[in-house]
Amino acid sequence: MTLKEEALQMHEDNQGKLTVQSKVIIKDKHDLSLAYSPGVAEPCLEIERDENAAYKYTMKSNMVGVVTNGTAVLGLGAIGAQASLPVMEGKAVLFKNFADVDAFPICLDTTDPDEVIRTVELLAPTFGGINLEDIKAPECFYIEQTLKERLNVPVFHDDQHGTAIVTLAGLVNALRLVDKSFDEIKVVINGAGAAGIAIVKLLHYFGVKDMILCDSKGAIYEGREVGMNAEKEAILAYTNKSNETGDLRSVMKDADVFIGVSLKDLVDEAMVESMKRDPIIFAMANPDPEITPERAKQAGARVIGTGRSDYPNQVNNVLAFPGIFKGALSVRATDINEEMKVAAVHAIAEIISESDLHEDYVIPDPFNKQVAEAVAQAVSEAAIKSGVSQGEHLDQD
Amino acid sequence: MTLKEEALQMHEDNQGKLTVQSKVIIKDKHDLSLAYSPGVAEPCLEIERDENAAYKYTMKSNMVGVVTNGTAVLGLGAIGAQASLPVMEGKAVLFKNFADVDAFPICLDTTDPDEVIRTVELLAPTFGGINLEDIKAPECFYIEQTLKERLNVPVFHDDQHGTAIVTLAGLVNALRLVDKSFDEIKVVINGAGAAGIAIVKLLHYFGVKDMILCDSKGAIYEGREVGMNAEKEAILAYTNKSNETGDLRSVMKDADVFIGVSLKDLVDEAMVESMKRDPIIFAMANPDPEITPERAKQAGARVIGTGRSDYPNQVNNVLAFPGIFKGALSVRATDINEEMKVAAVHAIAEIISESDLHEDYVIPDPFNKQVAEAVAQAVSEAAIKSGVSQGEHLDQD
Repeated sequence: MTLKEEALQMHEDNQGKLTVQSKVIIKDKHDLSLAYSPGVAEPCLEIERDENAAYKYTMKSNMVGVVTNGTAVLGLGAIGAQASLPVMEGKAVLFKNFADVDAFPICLDTTDPDEVIRTVELLAPTFGGINLEDIKAPECFYIEQTLKERLNVPVFHDDQHGTAIVTLAGLVNALRLVDKSFDEIKVVINGAGAAGIAIVKLLHYFGVKDMILCDSKGAIYEGREVGMNAEKEAILAYTNKSNETGDLRSVMKDADVFIGVSLKDLVDEAMVESMKRDPIIFAMANPDPEITPERAKQAGARVIGTGRSDYPNQVNNVLAFPGIFKGALSVRATDINEEMKVAAVHAIAEIISESDLHEDYVIPDPFNKQVAEAVAQAVSEAAIKSGVSQGEHLDQD
Repeated sequence: MTLKEEALQMHEDNQGKLTVQSKVIIKDKHDLSLAYSPGVAEPCLEIERDENAAYKYTMKSNMVGVVTNGTAVLGLGAIGAQASLPVMEGKAVLFKNFADVDAFPICLDTTDPDEVIRTVELLAPTFGGINLEDIKAPECFYIEQTLKERLNVPVFHDDQHGTAIVTLAGLVNALRLVDKSFDEIKVVINGAGAAGIAIVKLLHYFGVKDMILCDSKGAIYEGREVGMNAEKEAILAYTNKSNETGDLRSVMKDADVFIGVSLKDLVDEAMVESMKRDPIIFAMANPDPEITPERAKQAGARVIGTGRSDYPNQVNNVLAFPGIFKGALSVRATDINEEMKVAAVHAIAEIISESDLHEDYVIPDPFNKQVAEAVAQAVSEAAIKSGVSQGEHLDQD
């Protein structure tokens, strides 16, 4: 049986991957009178008096909505809300498996960003956090930003920030290996979708001064007229300082780091050879990277990461989102802000001790059980410190 | 500890009542590649080709959305979406406990019926059925009717039809006891909200020719000008044939059956005494009935049902909705139509054998495990027979 056949069979055998379970037992009338009428009126009235009591008496305290509109699902594109459900169920399975966070798929049958926003706003009472997923760029930026402003629960577009956080964790460790610092490196990022934009923003937060974002039309520069949008314009404030206008090959010259969230085979050996000493390559196009690790190595790359599990240094979002939401929920954070993302980056990077660190191990294994716990701890502390926590730190162990 | 304290404590100890569980185990990279990327792409693509494949490969096949806007929660009124969450979690617990149907709360923060409709329409891909709950009348009628037209999954407002179905089941058995038939009885229904209107419609379907619906202003009659709405007007087509204009006391004279879904203490002994031989009383105001069973009995009532678990003949919706959705989901019904509701009525009534039937046992016990199974079977057969089934009968045992 091929992997494809096995995957289909597994989904059919289980009729999907998620089920809802009761945390309470209903075996007699007394149980019923506590869980339902008339006893249930008591928590209702407590919450009517103070909405925060929902965190005390309901599943909201540990429940994340995994929201998509099916416009950019995996590498499959706009396959629609219904067809995206297996991915959203899978995401919820990962939340549960890696951090014991409850998560539930919400697949919205609309491509209108304002309808997505309004719908999430209306159904927010059920959830303690919203994970946006597989919503296409540039709409995803507007949707996330607007929801962050309107909701008092954390909103996090994983395709942006999850990828950015894990990439940065790998980069923190890679820079340690080559003994360079964020403020002295030149970084080229290829791909100006959700992940690319978020990576640029986080690199900026980490102090990178020299970076260029490219899309299929080459460098994004001041005055470019084709293929621009509000997000691409906005990042010009802190990218491409010398306003280079060339293609990817041209701007990669003398770069220290290449980060690809684009398409396969866009980078060749000559481009790697044109970089500064000890090139760092994160080639995350899936399933086939911008350049294979074998070829990158041969061309002199020192540290290489991909999106694949069959190579070292896999940039896998599962290292970030379960722990981030667990940490945010544990202190009833109202936001997942930059401080919390940076805390997650360091928590992931620091899982690898100085003595274990080497070229093929700058990112922890996705199945390393310490990661989610470490990320949750760091994120909850950052939430408290940055003033977006509504509650005490709730030790859930 | 009082029941109220115990209920609060139970909700706090468990942080609510629902949790989400994975049906698949993720212990290594291979598991991950089946449940998530890249294997998950296969069911996605199957569903993109044919939306019905969602029933085969996802949780949709057994997942009900429990949707409210918090405008008529229990007897508490419009306590809002957030405060209604404990009730919706409880409802989902009952779905699971009584019929192994997965259900998930969706609490919508809006009182605008069109926003409720649009939101449910947008999030329908996740669900195999929609259970509307605790939405106030008369908006609930418009919301349900519109959603039934727009969605291709079954939509069922339990406060209307659940109550109506269980009441009718009790009435079927009560009429057997007193040897009267639906077409010869006079029925007075007090309370023109969600349940009252639905009961009237279902009584009409069962062939009742002589019935009067009352609200707080007395009989609803042709030409009445105060306190009317579209639903009250509509049921005049088959109620109050002699256009009686009196109050509840006046129209109860010579009635065979009184059904109360209104307020406590509205019925006294004299009103029961004014009814025809062997009065049948369903006094379902909660927690205090329109007349206590003790007083009704003393005044000559033959069969008495209430909404309470501490009296015989409890009209409890849990006898209906779990099995109804289980039956509808098992054949991928696109609707829950009148035929399916009638099938549920008879299935519930027939749980009680001729030899067991007596005044204090016209409605089965809510914990009778046979009920949901019998209802599911009858409802799925009725769905197939009435042409709203999309799939073969799927034996889920």
